[in-house]
Amino acid sequence: MNAVINLSVGSQGLYDFTHKVQDVLADSRVNEGLVTLFIRHTSASLLLQENADPAAQRDLEAWLNRLVPENDPLYTHTQEGPDDMPAHIKSALTATSLSIPIMDGKMSLGTWQGIFLWEHRHHRGEREIIVSVIAA
Amino acid sequence: MNAVINLSVGSQGLYDFTHKVQDVLADSRVNEGLVTLFIRHTSASLLLQENADPAAQRDLEAWLNRLVPENDPLYTHTQEGPDDMPAHIKSALTATSLSIPIMDGKMSLGTWQGIFLWEHRHHRGEREIIVSVIAA
Amino acid sequence: MNAVINLSVGSQGLYDFTHKVQDVLADSRVNEGLVTLFIRHTSASLLLQENADPAAQRDLEAWLNRLVPENDPLYTHTQEGPDDMPAHIKSALTATSLSIPIMDGKMSLGTWQGIFLWEHRHHRGEREIIVSVIAA
Repeated sequence: MNAVINLSVGSQGLYDFTHKVQDVLADSRVNEGLVTLFIRHTSASLLLQENADPAAQRDLEAWLNRLVPENDPLYTHTQEGPDDMPAHIKSALTATSLSIPIMDGKMSLGTWQGIFLWEHRHHRGEREIIVSVIAA
Repeated sequence: MNAVINLSVGSQGLYDFTHKVQDVLADSRVNEGLVTLFIRHTSASLLLQENADPAAQRDLEAWLNRLVPENDPLYTHTQEGPDDMPAHIKSALTATSLSIPIMDGKMSLGTWQGIFLWEHRHHRGEREIIVSVIAA
Repeated sequence: MNAVINLSVGSQGLYDFTHKVQDVLADSRVNEGLVTLFIRHTSASLLLQENADPAAQRDLEAWLNRLVPENDPLYTHTQEGPDDMPAHIKSALTATSLSIPIMDGKMSLGTWQGIFLWEHRHHRGEREIIVSVIAA
């Protein structure tokens, strides 16, 4: 079973959407299996990260922004704005797809693991993630 | 169903092989499910990236080559050539496996998403990718 | 079928656990399919890498430790120790889940590919990986 999750994002940043994946899983009635997430974009990505301390999320973003700054003279792909090429690079360094086991009808995430969309661009918009649930 | 895709690569660079995965998918006759790609190498990797502007692909390569240069005095694994250790590092920073949903018999890639092999070494050769198609 | 693998780790480093995944696979009796690994932590990750020369593994670690050093003044999430925030960043740059095809009852790894847990923290402890085996 495949389902689409649409997320509205305000700007660059991490968006926890664990509960939306849980909703899809509840609908699927799969008790033992695997859920796979896929993001249909190349300037935003997926991340499993600590969901406890917001400072950890801010540090992650700040660190990656420093590693992949805007306006690097190396960039030639610049016509879509100063945040576009860094967004593609950040997307390449993180994940486009992620798989999480389902045990006893629930995702077997670790205690502190949340599922995040990592928006790498500044603009507001809609991002589309596809959730595939497979019995195993 | 598993199928093997062999790709001939000329040198370092990004090789779009989306159409080869589409061919495997057509053979599989799976209408709803998940396709997973796996590369059987540790000095080349898989990437979902923008397929529209070649400049974006060149910038990605140039950026990663600058981050992970050859002849870094840190390297001790040097007997396989100056491009080998950087290739392993680049492979670790990108993807060895990728999963893409199948909906209505087609991969649900985003409008600008292409599937690339990212060759990190200079030599010519054959690279092997395995495509697994699972109904969901 | 899902199974849990527990790994005891001594400190920061790469731990090859390919044989433990092979054991799960043998129990599953799946001949053609896909095995997916998932790590239930955000300060350790999964890696497919060269298993031949230990120098390649040491260089990988040394390189990533230099890219993501401890005590970076950028970090504000510091209460869990100087190795915690770098561990989250390293985890974000590498893999939380990995999928490998099963052909003829075996994982179709490349000749030099081993499956590693990459522990990013200094402490000793237990790490939990879930193995999902799906027929295809």
